[in-house]
Amino acid sequence: MTPFKLSDELIEKIEALIDSDSKHDLLQMLHDVHYADIAEIINELNLEEATYLIKLLDSKKTSDIITELDEDVRDKILNNLSSKEIAKEIVELDTDDAADIINELPDERKEEVISYIDDHEHAKDIVELLRYDEDTAGGLMAKELVKVNENWTVLNCVKEMRAQAEHVTRVHSIYVVDDNEKLIGRLSLKDLLTASTRSAIKDVYITKVDYVSVHDDAEDVARIMAKYDLEAIPVVDELGRLVGRITIDDIIDVIRDEAERDYQMAAGISKDVEAKDSILKLTRARLPWLLIGTFGGMMAAKIITSFQQGMGDYVILLSFVPLIQATAGNVGVQSSAIIVQGLANDSIDGQILSRLFKEFLLGLVNGGSIASVVLLITHFLFDTQYVVSLTIGIAIISVIIIAAIIGTFIPIFLHKRGIDPAVATGPFITTSNDIFGILVYFSIAKLILGF
Amino acid sequence: MTPFKLSDELIEKIEALIDSDSKHDLLQMLHDVHYADIAEIINELNLEEATYLIKLLDSKKTSDIITELDEDVRDKILNNLSSKEIAKEIVELDTDDAADIINELPDERKEEVISYIDDHEHAKDIVELLRYDEDTAGGLMAKELVKVNENWTVLNCVKEMRAQAEHVTRVHSIYVVDDNEKLIGRLSLKDLLTASTRSAIKDVYITKVDYVSVHDDAEDVARIMAKYDLEAIPVVDELGRLVGRITIDDIIDVIRDEAERDYQMAAGISKDVEAKDSILKLTRARLPWLLIGTFGGMMAAKIITSFQQGMGDYVILLSFVPLIQATAGNVGVQSSAIIVQGLANDSIDGQILSRLFKEFLLGLVNGGSIASVVLLITHFLFDTQYVVSLTIGIAIISVIIIAAIIGTFIPIFLHKRGIDPAVATGPFITTSNDIFGILVYFSIAKLILGF
Repeated sequence: MTPFKLSDELIEKIEALIDSDSKHDLLQMLHDVHYADIAEIINELNLEEATYLIKLLDSKKTSDIITELDEDVRDKILNNLSSKEIAKEIVELDTDDAADIINELPDERKEEVISYIDDHEHAKDIVELLRYDEDTAGGLMAKELVKVNENWTVLNCVKEMRAQAEHVTRVHSIYVVDDNEKLIGRLSLKDLLTASTRSAIKDVYITKVDYVSVHDDAEDVARIMAKYDLEAIPVVDELGRLVGRITIDDIIDVIRDEAERDYQMAAGISKDVEAKDSILKLTRARLPWLLIGTFGGMMAAKIITSFQQGMGDYVILLSFVPLIQATAGNVGVQSSAIIVQGLANDSIDGQILSRLFKEFLLGLVNGGSIASVVLLITHFLFDTQYVVSLTIGIAIISVIIIAAIIGTFIPIFLHKRGIDPAVATGPFITTSNDIFGILVYFSIAKLILGF
Repeated sequence: MTPFKLSDELIEKIEALIDSDSKHDLLQMLHDVHYADIAEIINELNLEEATYLIKLLDSKKTSDIITELDEDVRDKILNNLSSKEIAKEIVELDTDDAADIINELPDERKEEVISYIDDHEHAKDIVELLRYDEDTAGGLMAKELVKVNENWTVLNCVKEMRAQAEHVTRVHSIYVVDDNEKLIGRLSLKDLLTASTRSAIKDVYITKVDYVSVHDDAEDVARIMAKYDLEAIPVVDELGRLVGRITIDDIIDVIRDEAERDYQMAAGISKDVEAKDSILKLTRARLPWLLIGTFGGMMAAKIITSFQQGMGDYVILLSFVPLIQATAGNVGVQSSAIIVQGLANDSIDGQILSRLFKEFLLGLVNGGSIASVVLLITHFLFDTQYVVSLTIGIAIISVIIIAAIIGTFIPIFLHKRGIDPAVATGPFITTSNDIFGILVYFSIAKLILGF
């Protein structure tokens, strides 16, 4: 398979065809292109061109394209379509994608769009999904699924499934419910293929079925599905009734979003920006974190100034501030990153004390190695007294241990309080470690050198 | 569903049962526990206890457990089993998991284990998979799939599928091949359910089928499957012959591993360590990056010392070194993280110059804001001359712009050279920005203040 490649030439060619209103050529050119690829093309077009394409293409295809667009591009395009036109796209979509799109509309348009959906059942399903928070199982699930009653026979079941399957893009499992719609088990397609047509479902279904509840956290659902290798999971309401199912492709988005958010937080970027966003949006995501660093830097300056006055002969100590700071920052980020990732994977048990002790030992080992390197280099490259080198060495070990402990403690503490520990990575941890590191450095120096 | 929760009590209870050799109680207790959960339990046991459990449980279950264990635990347990015992586990597994396990064995044991696999076809398939690099489509694929010949009828096909389905855990798609085993299309189960049994496959199959080649990069396969929402993708060899298929659950692992690796690199940790690893292993992963910071710090010290001599009255400038350094580091990490993530998502086109210009503008905006804050604070909180504050402000703007440009340029440059741009994040970018930042700061100060 030759992967689709977005190129400037392709965009220019499409823009030219739109300019010259060459509908036939455009339709022919895009006929075999996957909707996810067309979405990438449209992301690069201006609003007018994008709207032109969306109106030109068949709504079976454009509905899928719309779900794949960048959120800001989608917002603008939907804003350019009438409620009736949006409804025409919505009816082509599965309920989960339909609800996601409607959720992005301004409140006053939501109802209008829904009122234009002719299929009453479909509209009812979408309205039901709108009730759930998007970060929950209810917010992820779709209403499209294949379910059978325990009292049917396999033959009934196959017939009924043929009808239901019309509305379901991919059949993963067949869910078995009782007369009260309560989820009681599942059937695999394989079982159905191999069972006799006269058997009762009651006698062939599997009672063991994994499920989640509508209010379960989306990230927990992702963890469960990944851990148990599930390709779909049924969702039940408070009464245990089968109300929807979540498929693995939606979970991939959850996993990716979670990873991206943690990564961006560690890098000091508020979530949800991309390289192609506007300078204003990027500044809003980046400046707050930089300002934290600024205030930390000013505080460090204050600390240094206060020590500087009595320093006299030992002004050489100031040259090693970057070393102290870089080390404290690096150690803090390493320690916190390991903890944050461990918490995300659920692979860390809560024993704070033993973990802090381990970081203390790690700090001793790393600190000792780094201090030796520093002693060696200062001895050969700098014109410092031996006692000054020693001071720097001792300070480095102390700073590393303190930085490691802060980097470990803060994420665990936040996690216990129910706050996302990822906020403690990046500039937050570096800044606090900068300040502590410099304070410890000069305090130790003052103690040893006695200025 | 009440999610399984690993607790100290549970581990202790199981250890006690193993101690007292209570086979029956253990079997009963673990009967309904999912293999992924038992793997979590075994990860916490000592080697003797772990081996006891593996030998006690049914090999249908233990084979799956073994695939889910932590790699180091698995290595030790396999080391404790005879080649015949390992072969007994292997035959229960799908070919992809089997090949992964055999790949981890020492070379001399590989052949021995394979020689104990009775099912010749299965052994042949596994040996074929061992040929491929684990980071390629061939390394991810399994041989288990359902394929039909274009010349069959739907009835033939259903019969044949029943037989093939015995060996395939989950049927995603039915692949259609010609007489030369070349992949020519696919059939969905839905199509099969709704087609007449007398139709020829030739007349009902879909010719459009996505596929990858055995040598395609695993991360590219992940991107394709995620982008096109595929739950399985067929793999072809150099002649276009269908040789395997990759399922979405394997792709989830690829996506997670990729995200974890990028995250750890950004945090200055070599890949593949966890909080519970030994201090030695953790030190090996962390110390090299810390040493980069150490050398950077020493270089910065050298720069500062060389400027310090002529500095005279302006020794106050030294107090602001942490500010300069923190700002340079933070900006560099932000810029590089956005680029690295954009490259990973394939959402960055290659225009270096326009991207650098954008970072320049961003640097101006952010730098201007931060410089104003710094001017204000130094004015009110520090006893500095106005010209010194101004110097610091101008230096901050320059440092931010340079850091942003370095942070943007390096990952793009590495990517163009075919090197993973993630190596440029974390300590690497912070250290180079520290050095450049301090050099620029003092150079500008010297220029303006003339010392």
